Amino acid sequence: MPASPPESLPALDLTGDLTELLVALVDTESVSGDEARIADAIQAALEPLDHLELIRDGDVLVARTQLGRAERVVLAGHTDTVPIAGNVPSTTTGKGDDRVVHGRGSCDMKGGVAVQLAVAAALREPARDLTFIFYDHEEVEASLNGLARIGRERPDLLAASFAVLLEPTNARVEGGCQGTMRAEVTLTGVAAHSARSWMGSNAIHAAGPLLERLAAHTSAQVEVEGLVYREGMNAVRIAGGIAGNVIPDRCVVEVNYRFAPDKDDAQAEAYVREVLDGFDLEITDVATGARPGLDRPIAADFLAAVGGEAHPKFGWTDVARFSALDIPAVNFGPGDPSKAHADDEFCPTADLHTCRDALLRWLG
Amino acid sequence: MPASPPESLPALDLTGDLTELLVALVDTESVSGDEARIADAIQAALEPLDHLELIRDGDVLVARTQLGRAERVVLAGHTDTVPIAGNVPSTTTGKGDDRVVHGRGSCDMKGGVAVQLAVAAALREPARDLTFIFYDHEEVEASLNGLARIGRERPDLLAASFAVLLEPTNARVEGGCQGTMRAEVTLTGVAAHSARSWMGSNAIHAAGPLLERLAAHTSAQVEVEGLVYREGMNAVRIAGGIAGNVIPDRCVVEVNYRFAPDKDDAQAEAYVREVLDGFDLEITDVATGARPGLDRPIAADFLAAVGGEAHPKFGWTDVARFSALDIPAVNFGPGDPSKAHADDEFCPTADLHTCRDALLRWLG
Repeated sequence: MPASPPESLPALDLTGDLTELLVALVDTESVSGDEARIADAIQAALEPLDHLELIRDGDVLVARTQLGRAERVVLAGHTDTVPIAGNVPSTTTGKGDDRVVHGRGSCDMKGGVAVQLAVAAALREPARDLTFIFYDHEEVEASLNGLARIGRERPDLLAASFAVLLEPTNARVEGGCQGTMRAEVTLTGVAAHSARSWMGSNAIHAAGPLLERLAAHTSAQVEVEGLVYREGMNAVRIAGGIAGNVIPDRCVVEVNYRFAPDKDDAQAEAYVREVLDGFDLEITDVATGARPGLDRPIAADFLAAVGGEAHPKFGWTDVARFSALDIPAVNFGPGDPSKAHADDEFCPTADLHTCRDALLRWLG
Repeated sequence: MPASPPESLPALDLTGDLTELLVALVDTESVSGDEARIADAIQAALEPLDHLELIRDGDVLVARTQLGRAERVVLAGHTDTVPIAGNVPSTTTGKGDDRVVHGRGSCDMKGGVAVQLAVAAALREPARDLTFIFYDHEEVEASLNGLARIGRERPDLLAASFAVLLEPTNARVEGGCQGTMRAEVTLTGVAAHSARSWMGSNAIHAAGPLLERLAAHTSAQVEVEGLVYREGMNAVRIAGGIAGNVIPDRCVVEVNYRFAPDKDDAQAEAYVREVLDGFDLEITDVATGARPGLDRPIAADFLAAVGGEAHPKFGWTDVARFSALDIPAVNFGPGDPSKAHADDEFCPTADLHTCRDALLRWLG
């Protein structure tokens, strides 16, 4: 038998029905590590657009205008998803503007990618130069993140006056993002046979006061540039004990601190150490937050154009990668962020239209 | 090349130096599941003794006199060890009666097995009929225990008026044993993204009051037939959390209750439920304790013969299997029980002699 021909790429119609475009994207499976095919499909759809310079680097695609405008705006989104859960291919419910697309990636964040693509095709002569970035490996460890890689290897491709990350925000503007820090608190004791427990000292019991302190802790609400960020400090993992008959001499609690973007890493660490004073802790991971940047004129201009009020972004997002390059960045995309990664994730057609229309209004 | 010949069995000299006998036993590796070779060696050493009827069943060996005495005493010990830790072959330190054998199984419990073998060889016409039991799979899950299997399949082989289990007791009599019960306490919450922790409820934090309660609990000391048992209730394992960015909705704490032999299983469970009132718990495992049986004449006779004072056994041991058959049983063996399973376990020659001589005095 002859070898099978390569599977044909899904056709992406960038100027047709936006909901159908999202369906086509969802139906092109692209779990992290497996983004080549969706990148191929996006590349094939963008290639005919001669107003865009197209650059492919691994599975990252950068499409940009070169009109010599005074300002440049980045519109960025990732093409990968978390693993599917029987929710690909997509299904749709409702009709017309009430139509909803259900399936893996519909919310996080192929709805945003669909909007990026529609805007890329529609705006042949934007008022500001535009850079569309489609990147891989957002849903896995940060070291693989396609946007971070481009930032390291080709930072010129990210240069801009402003960036919009099309992560789901219910089609409203969410400014900046909170930082996230992880600390490991280690409780120690003395091992002993559990039949002679008085010979030992129980490290799991020693975690009691730590957990009580975390439960009693009231996290701050911090206003930054008019947005109120809500912090949180939580045990997210605990493990202790080696056998059913041994008094444990070690118990480890992983604490996650989400901190407002008024703090840098050192200030966040100092706060964790203050709250958990007396415990043996080690900082294992930190991702700095991003200030909303709403005090900059271009951000105000964006807000005025898209309408509505800005809200704080509680989760950490890749806007922080732009913020670290001193590029103000906001989150603005279709879909409910609380449905990201949920098995029943979905994206409403109305959100797709809201985001697309707002961006066209601002950039047209 | 021809196949290698089967490795020859270690020679066990049952009437020579007791310490050398222990060395030979330790040097015959017998981690649980791998007891065939040591059973072969013991079988080969016992076969020439025509005062003993020898029965092999799997890797269990039963050797017994059939003299028609009014009473029968069981001397039992297991041949398996926990995994070695670079401590086989054995080493010895000191000289003469101060000699000490170091190595896996020296304490738990090949010292006891050496004493069994020496007594088996020495007593050709004991005052009471004797049953020596050497069994496998004591150090692993109870369902594999060789003594338990014989109790189920051939209970006649266990019949006796009294049993001595030669587990390490520092060569003193330890009566009965405490029971052990395990309970799983499940704390529940509501999962949420840790950046929006107020949307969830933290199940790990909910473990704080449980751990505080366990830490504050004072365990009872209970007198049974003149021996004071010391109980204990401890968290021995804790696990919660599924990811570094998720508020955990589940945390499980395994609690181990060691209870005095005045309580049956139902009374032990009632006590656990009383102490942990308000928590969702499930009993996952229980092994009933054994009363010391020191109120029986044969036990008093044993105590008088071996000398010294009886002490309570805090750990659970296979004496409970005899107790369940209404056979009074005590623990009496060489080695420090707190060194059982320790990487630096050892057995003093003096303990070997003390135990052997006491048994010969009582049974001779």
